[in-house]
Amino acid sequence: MQLNIQKVERDAKVELPKDLVFGTMFTDHMFEMDYNPEKGWHNATIKKYEDLKLNPAAMVFHYGQEIFEGLKAYRQPNGKIGLFRPEKNFERMNVSAKRLCMPEFDVDFMVEALRKLVELDRDWVPQYEGQSLYIRPFMIATDPYVGVRASYTYKLLIICTPVGLYYPEGLKPVPIMVSEDYVRAVKKGVGFTKCGGNYAGGMIAQQQAKDAGYTQVLWLDAKEQKYVEEVGTMNFFAAFENEIVTPELGGSILAGVTRMSAIDVLRDWGYKVTERSLEINELYDADGKGTLKEMFGTGTAATISCVGKLQFGEKIIEVSKGEAGEISKRLYNEITGIQFGKVEDKFGWMNIID
Amino acid sequence: MQLNIQKVERDAKVELPKDLVFGTMFTDHMFEMDYNPEKGWHNATIKKYEDLKLNPAAMVFHYGQEIFEGLKAYRQPNGKIGLFRPEKNFERMNVSAKRLCMPEFDVDFMVEALRKLVELDRDWVPQYEGQSLYIRPFMIATDPYVGVRASYTYKLLIICTPVGLYYPEGLKPVPIMVSEDYVRAVKKGVGFTKCGGNYAGGMIAQQQAKDAGYTQVLWLDAKEQKYVEEVGTMNFFAAFENEIVTPELGGSILAGVTRMSAIDVLRDWGYKVTERSLEINELYDADGKGTLKEMFGTGTAATISCVGKLQFGEKIIEVSKGEAGEISKRLYNEITGIQFGKVEDKFGWMNIID
Repeated sequence: MQLNIQKVERDAKVELPKDLVFGTMFTDHMFEMDYNPEKGWHNATIKKYEDLKLNPAAMVFHYGQEIFEGLKAYRQPNGKIGLFRPEKNFERMNVSAKRLCMPEFDVDFMVEALRKLVELDRDWVPQYEGQSLYIRPFMIATDPYVGVRASYTYKLLIICTPVGLYYPEGLKPVPIMVSEDYVRAVKKGVGFTKCGGNYAGGMIAQQQAKDAGYTQVLWLDAKEQKYVEEVGTMNFFAAFENEIVTPELGGSILAGVTRMSAIDVLRDWGYKVTERSLEINELYDADGKGTLKEMFGTGTAATISCVGKLQFGEKIIEVSKGEAGEISKRLYNEITGIQFGKVEDKFGWMNIID
Repeated sequence: MQLNIQKVERDAKVELPKDLVFGTMFTDHMFEMDYNPEKGWHNATIKKYEDLKLNPAAMVFHYGQEIFEGLKAYRQPNGKIGLFRPEKNFERMNVSAKRLCMPEFDVDFMVEALRKLVELDRDWVPQYEGQSLYIRPFMIATDPYVGVRASYTYKLLIICTPVGLYYPEGLKPVPIMVSEDYVRAVKKGVGFTKCGGNYAGGMIAQQQAKDAGYTQVLWLDAKEQKYVEEVGTMNFFAAFENEIVTPELGGSILAGVTRMSAIDVLRDWGYKVTERSLEINELYDADGKGTLKEMFGTGTAATISCVGKLQFGEKIIEVSKGEAGEISKRLYNEITGIQFGKVEDKFGWMNIID
């Protein structure tokens, strides 16, 4: 397929503020591609960032056929730009598409299209410490039809927004709270996909946690409310004395790109990392015995987020008091180091744009 | 709040085809209203049906904050138009809004706005037997922001589409299949809301049923996959010898307006109707004993849909062979009779537009 490029001419150079706010300012260009059953994916175009015009009956507004991805472009010390494992995001997007009855696409083509988009918007990739360009691919259903069925037509878009550090105050441990009133996902459902519905359903628990003074919510499984699943919109890790555990993927958990990268790095360092079911009580038992060393979340937005306090009803764990734990810190430095080109990319994860 | 009306002037009269296809043709007008935290709901306007222009970062495209309703306007024998319990739909929409962290609205105002909209589009309410005007209120999140949180701004719209009979061939019993590979909802989730995510997640099971030669899918509970929840996008009823059972509402089931109306009508006729948990095996046991008389679904689109065959793995039930069961038929005639003004509205359900 051909990629049609309509370059935007600017009068002035891009000027980015030093204090970037997450997700409110968008770059000059966006990528857009259409799907219908006759032509498949077609009209792949990079063009001016502009409003979408959609029929109010477009199915995306009604039946939730919408999936997305999130990844980042990082300014390298030599001025080049690095993408972190972009093929993993597009591969996962195809997994989401399949579950939601939406059309899959060619991953290599999308990686190339993204490279072109970021190249055109390269002045939007920030220069300051820890800042990056957040990239949001998303696919939406566009048939103007009010009956319940999969749409025949779709759009796949990519938009980009320069973002500051997720935690401007540094990698401080955050307090999280187990959600007992709400669940995020259940096996045989859509928890392993990045579809809009998963996020809309979780907002109320997030607000409840915020209102109670917590930064994030810890999700338990929906069947027994006994096993740890995710933390907010991140994957969860617990470092015990002799083992680092992250909940196994089983249909209700998102297969995070940072999660899989963290597992590789930790194993490379010699840690025993196990993907298995993790009872919430195991955390409290280990804390009682003094064998729970650290807890952290992994995700694209924050990379690594250290958990300092975990509340579950009456029970409270406090670890990594005041300062992020050793493993969290080392992992954060390693992965962000690779992303920003300051640490050797021994896994071959970076996709560099000259 | 004031309702601003921008009437569309037509050159020619509305001409509706005799064979209406569900959900593809839209009326002249639509209702649109905006929300922000400062003004609350404002700009309530009835205007020309037209495309929505939205920033590609509008949150509805990403995080699934979208809820909808479905109801119908029916042409009465005297030429007037009747709405069926519209306040119930707007009340339920507020329930959905609350769960999805979206703003609630004034139900009375929305019923009045809907009456005005249908009055303006009255020529779009079909005249032929069994046809009606399908009404779709929906609310979407509009903040252009790519972080995960509830949107601050929203739009509430109503669009309308003239529709034909859902089953043009009449109330024939349909074959349905229990979904064993997928689940629709789980307690403490969003199953009781009419949010987009619930529908996107169910499409794959619907396709699986279609591919296997079934019209609809029967959903079991997500925890034990043992209890009946819904059938496709309808509520489920089973008529046993001495009792009609419909699954109790418990967080994972939609509180259908046709469901509650069917319960009232059946009780008024002297049937014992019980809202309780219903094991799928109970249906097979009763069928074996000859005490399962009928099964049917209730919903706005089809009103009543008679189930003739139910497949669950190796097990098959066949009831109402060839022709809809007595209760299904009587209930269908009664409720559609009230809706079309041919049966006395003794419950006071109709909202008539002169």
